[in-house]
Amino acid sequence: MSDIADKIKSGNRRSIAKAITLIESSRPDHQQQAELLLKELLSNTGNALRLGLTGIPGVGKSTFIETFGKMLTAKGHRVAVLAVDPSSQISGGSILGDKTRMEELARDNMAFIRPTPSNGTLGGIARYTREAMMILEAAGFDIIIVETVGVGQSEVAVENLVDMFILLLAPGGGDELQGIKRGIMELADLVIINKADGDFENAARIAAADCNNALHLMQPKNDVWTAKVLMASALKKSGFDEIWQVITSFRNIMSDGNLLEERRNQQMKSAIWSEVSELIVDQIKKQKLKKIDVLEKAVINKQITPLAAARELISTILNNKIT
Amino acid sequence: MSDIADKIKSGNRRSIAKAITLIESSRPDHQQQAELLLKELLSNTGNALRLGLTGIPGVGKSTFIETFGKMLTAKGHRVAVLAVDPSSQISGGSILGDKTRMEELARDNMAFIRPTPSNGTLGGIARYTREAMMILEAAGFDIIIVETVGVGQSEVAVENLVDMFILLLAPGGGDELQGIKRGIMELADLVIINKADGDFENAARIAAADCNNALHLMQPKNDVWTAKVLMASALKKSGFDEIWQVITSFRNIMSDGNLLEERRNQQMKSAIWSEVSELIVDQIKKQKLKKIDVLEKAVINKQITPLAAARELISTILNNKIT
Repeated sequence: MSDIADKIKSGNRRSIAKAITLIESSRPDHQQQAELLLKELLSNTGNALRLGLTGIPGVGKSTFIETFGKMLTAKGHRVAVLAVDPSSQISGGSILGDKTRMEELARDNMAFIRPTPSNGTLGGIARYTREAMMILEAAGFDIIIVETVGVGQSEVAVENLVDMFILLLAPGGGDELQGIKRGIMELADLVIINKADGDFENAARIAAADCNNALHLMQPKNDVWTAKVLMASALKKSGFDEIWQVITSFRNIMSDGNLLEERRNQQMKSAIWSEVSELIVDQIKKQKLKKIDVLEKAVINKQITPLAAARELISTILNNKIT
Repeated sequence: MSDIADKIKSGNRRSIAKAITLIESSRPDHQQQAELLLKELLSNTGNALRLGLTGIPGVGKSTFIETFGKMLTAKGHRVAVLAVDPSSQISGGSILGDKTRMEELARDNMAFIRPTPSNGTLGGIARYTREAMMILEAAGFDIIIVETVGVGQSEVAVENLVDMFILLLAPGGGDELQGIKRGIMELADLVIINKADGDFENAARIAAADCNNALHLMQPKNDVWTAKVLMASALKKSGFDEIWQVITSFRNIMSDGNLLEERRNQQMKSAIWSEVSELIVDQIKKQKLKKIDVLEKAVINKQITPLAAARELISTILNNKIT
């Protein structure tokens, strides 16, 4: 593993891909290897700026990331893109995450694009994303973009993995769309109105003003940063310099007050708990206790609720130990 | 509690609302009361057809449910609508779920509309939805529609709560939209192309054909039912009779082979496990073990990964007990 670790640290793309495949695997031997490998890499992690980017389908995320990513690699940055797609968990493979969506960026030596595998649970997806970020950071990527599709729970999970959460919006949209925006908007450090070109330019300006109003009514996420609203056109490649300026100023302001470090520490702590909850259920299931059958039957026969059954199961297991 | 339970069973709306408020509460005394109440109601649950309905913002879910719901109440059914909106978990209240979206249905004595509260975790949302369904079933509602907003994890959670999962789509949509559809489409028992009217009628027909093609390439969810594709217009109130026919035939076919019962039993079993994972983390946190601080520091100082920390914490707690 120390050999692969060295190759990853030198930026070897094949080793990076291999390592990510390893952390994706559910085979116990692969998982052991992955843990050894991550232990080797740990001290080299943490050096990238981690950006979360979300937006509903059709808002133009791929084109945005392609344009933004190319601008960053032209500036000398090494950019990695991880696409999180929880909706594909049944099909067993990422539907949207293929490189064909970002052809130019995929061919760029300074960039690395990888769909996050779909793994059954949100906790699993979060783990893989977190560990893939570690590998990419150890490999010297200094900007990591975690792209997420959807308007709900996965955004909350991704926000808890990144330094800065960016929401991409289309100009316009009905009442329902406006409703959606508010829930996710509270997570956002930066809102970008995309497709601000041609016929949409005016609508984009109105949407930006609406967003600003909505943001003013919300509690800022912290004392030093209030969410900003910007406009961009991936088509005209406009707005991207300003976006990068705002992102860098976010990083500087957050780093100055140690807020970035605090945010990451909090994220790591909550990661432990999400792992605990994943693992403990696995372990209890493995014990194949008779009690489980009894409780399942009681729930099915409408004698007790699932919650009451869970309480009883846990007290059977833990009572003597931690009360 | 047995008094409230009786009132609920007789369909008293105020008691229903009060009971749902009780299960939503995080106060320990309320939670205890809610558990007692649910125990009283358990034997009266299970008699409704539970429908999940999802679709991205703008597809016309509210209008669809209003038209569909009014048709059902006119047929003599008692219809309850629960709106699940995980994106509002920070704002602490449902943004979209208000009754103003479905004015006519909200005024209908045969109907009951309630937004599911946002509660921090997907597990929490699932619990409330499940328990609210129990109350509504005990109160005699025979059709429950669980409406969900989004294209990801929350749909998977809702699919695991209902008998039949319905996906509402707009005619047309770009490549990305097509991509989204596939992931969620594998969950669907029925796909409805909405807004099949006026200028969109032709586009709706094409979208329906596309969906049918996509569905043919997928593994059916079970042996007796292959997902169907239908068209509807809430505006013209067309397509709804056929939709109801398909839903009833789904119920009959699934009931005949005991598949509906099996599906519900599976759902109940998985509910126990999701409760276990929620509760166990709460309990461990409450113990305030010194080990937790030590492990958190080790993770923050990049000495171990969150996964390794979780392993160590769990083995500390469980080792002597269940290995």
